[in-house]
Amino acid sequence: MVNHSFQSPKGTRDLFPPDLAALHHIESTWRTASVNAGFDEIEGPNFEHLELYTVKSGDSIVNELFSFRRSGGDVDYALRPEFTPTLARMAAAKGRSLTLPTKWFAIPNHFRAERPQRGRLREFKQWNVDLLGVDKPSADAEVIATAIRALDELGLTHDDIVVRISHRDVVVQMLQESGVTPDKMQIALTLLDKREKMAPEVFVEKITEHGLDATCFDQFDADTEVDHKELASLQKELDAWGISDWCKFDFTIVRGLAYYTGIVFEIHERSGDERAIAGGGRYDRLVEMFGGPSMPAVGFGMGDVVLSLVLKDKGLLGDGSEFLPRPDVFLISAGNDADSHMASTVATLRKAGLHARMTYRATRNVGKLLTEAAKANARHAVILGEELANGNVVIKNMDSGEQEVIAVDDIVSHLTA
Amino acid sequence: MVNHSFQSPKGTRDLFPPDLAALHHIESTWRTASVNAGFDEIEGPNFEHLELYTVKSGDSIVNELFSFRRSGGDVDYALRPEFTPTLARMAAAKGRSLTLPTKWFAIPNHFRAERPQRGRLREFKQWNVDLLGVDKPSADAEVIATAIRALDELGLTHDDIVVRISHRDVVVQMLQESGVTPDKMQIALTLLDKREKMAPEVFVEKITEHGLDATCFDQFDADTEVDHKELASLQKELDAWGISDWCKFDFTIVRGLAYYTGIVFEIHERSGDERAIAGGGRYDRLVEMFGGPSMPAVGFGMGDVVLSLVLKDKGLLGDGSEFLPRPDVFLISAGNDADSHMASTVATLRKAGLHARMTYRATRNVGKLLTEAAKANARHAVILGEELANGNVVIKNMDSGEQEVIAVDDIVSHLTA
Repeated sequence: MVNHSFQSPKGTRDLFPPDLAALHHIESTWRTASVNAGFDEIEGPNFEHLELYTVKSGDSIVNELFSFRRSGGDVDYALRPEFTPTLARMAAAKGRSLTLPTKWFAIPNHFRAERPQRGRLREFKQWNVDLLGVDKPSADAEVIATAIRALDELGLTHDDIVVRISHRDVVVQMLQESGVTPDKMQIALTLLDKREKMAPEVFVEKITEHGLDATCFDQFDADTEVDHKELASLQKELDAWGISDWCKFDFTIVRGLAYYTGIVFEIHERSGDERAIAGGGRYDRLVEMFGGPSMPAVGFGMGDVVLSLVLKDKGLLGDGSEFLPRPDVFLISAGNDADSHMASTVATLRKAGLHARMTYRATRNVGKLLTEAAKANARHAVILGEELANGNVVIKNMDSGEQEVIAVDDIVSHLTA
Repeated sequence: MVNHSFQSPKGTRDLFPPDLAALHHIESTWRTASVNAGFDEIEGPNFEHLELYTVKSGDSIVNELFSFRRSGGDVDYALRPEFTPTLARMAAAKGRSLTLPTKWFAIPNHFRAERPQRGRLREFKQWNVDLLGVDKPSADAEVIATAIRALDELGLTHDDIVVRISHRDVVVQMLQESGVTPDKMQIALTLLDKREKMAPEVFVEKITEHGLDATCFDQFDADTEVDHKELASLQKELDAWGISDWCKFDFTIVRGLAYYTGIVFEIHERSGDERAIAGGGRYDRLVEMFGGPSMPAVGFGMGDVVLSLVLKDKGLLGDGSEFLPRPDVFLISAGNDADSHMASTVATLRKAGLHARMTYRATRNVGKLLTEAAKANARHAVILGEELANGNVVIKNMDSGEQEVIAVDDIVSHLTA
């Protein structure tokens, strides 16, 4: 009889060893790409004061919060739905002592109370990369290049992936020129942002409902060429970084969050079958909003859920067991005389930094224990048997099958050679 | 004007780069000790159904929960205050397909709504190590040895640290023999558990209040020798693992949580000035309680907060900046001709797996940029200057001060040699 309290909450994951090994493979690739690009890692609380989100963020995020108040308490909290407010708060807390530029990244948990579906969970990991203090397209390019560096390292290519780059000013200007009046600009942007996720007839219905003319959106269907100084500079930078093949300008990209101010981008699988792998852009006024000094900033967030789906789809990620650590050695006792040496030998191997396992089974049948060593995927088996009387052990390479007799004192040097 | 919503919630931490580097140093030591001892890493949700905690855990944990319900929802959740219920739930979910023994570890976040004080925060990291399916003292010893392995690796010795080992049955028997009646056993255990944290006169007041005789606790003041088969076997195992110097039997250790069934232990700094660094023991009935098969189990939890205090106190942990990753190279452009090579050169270095930085400042003053490279703690500076006309760059070892001219195509091989 399984009680609902004995299952993980809806939209969350129990990560068994292979699942977590797969996630760690992604996280470690994110971390290496960030560190090598000169970003320093930070982390904040998993819950924040509710006001951190309600005061500054767009409505889209507020409806998706897990908010709570302790019984008897008078402070409202929310599980962290995104990292940017925490980042802005932390930058603001440092005030003028913050050395600029500051390059930060984080790999926090996020929580959103939305309906779980393909590519969307209620708890997930997100890689956040932010560059504070530089208002030049070279910063935008470095941030995008860092995202691509990780995707490249994970085995994806520009045939699989596209970075769709847009600019808030350009989109607004295009809508203006098509006759969208200032009072309808916000709803026009919101509908454009959501267009890809709607059936065409639903989209037409929605725009008509809001008194907008369907032709306003026609220009976003063609490959639009625009004359925009910042985007022209960005294009040069993307060329210099060698990542133009991964990028294209696409003015249907709006990004839902209210705090973006300039360039915005989304990273998608080229077929468009999945949700966005990442999204980001420039948020030059955000740190100031949180009480800090005025500071330009650019960044992105990349979640683990859609990325994992894409990697699996491309055959670049299995069930995760391919990333489980292999034991360096599986220690086997062939009889009672050897038993008394097991714990001390394993302790010595582990102290030397080796991954050393042994059985808890009562059997001293070497054949059965070699099977257990193979099942554990050990690189070597060391058999403590009769040879121990002469201070020797048998060591077997589990990949090649070769075995030899070595001195018990040489196990560590043999395995670390 | 700083609004309270712009600070981290009470009892939580903003981890700036050195803070997080210090935490990662501890986490990575925990992880290596676990993996090398053959434990596989798992993780669960940061929040669970409230019932997971209220139904099975002792009262001590329930009062410290952050529990919540979504507005309009009908499910109660709680932020995870400890990992054992999640572990038991996950083991139960696998049912009979779980291969025994199963050795799992986790490094989750935990949340407790208690008053923040020295060594106690409302959000912290805890290393959890659990060995399921073996009811022998050899399993208890391996789990304790794994904890000691990590402490040893962090630089602590048995002069700094003591593992105080007790046994629920022995403590109950000692209290019985002193005249504690069955109806008063639970309160006697609870008071004994809390005795160390109370002033002696408060303790006497409390025991009197509950109608207990003060002499019942006298025997716990002396170094008690007991004749107990399991503890005698454990002592032999601790000797075999070479960790007897770190351990002592101490029957004042009770552990507050209701689910322990046999051996219990706490790890303390020897002076006793800080709270427990770790606590654990045997919980042979817990997996069954959560709907799984009957399964013996032993494990411990070690938080990062008290451990960090102890490491800092012993001079084994600084402000964390000692663990920040060092850039392999800081790239410097000495003039306009070199500027156009910067992005592509940095991209090449990063693609080769190197940690490569450059400036965002407008200056091309090599002296100032070398100062910036030194401040970033870079191992090398590479100067793109006049030599670039011949395909060469200047590379400077920032530690030794030595510099030489090498081909631009040889930077990677020079740095990875």
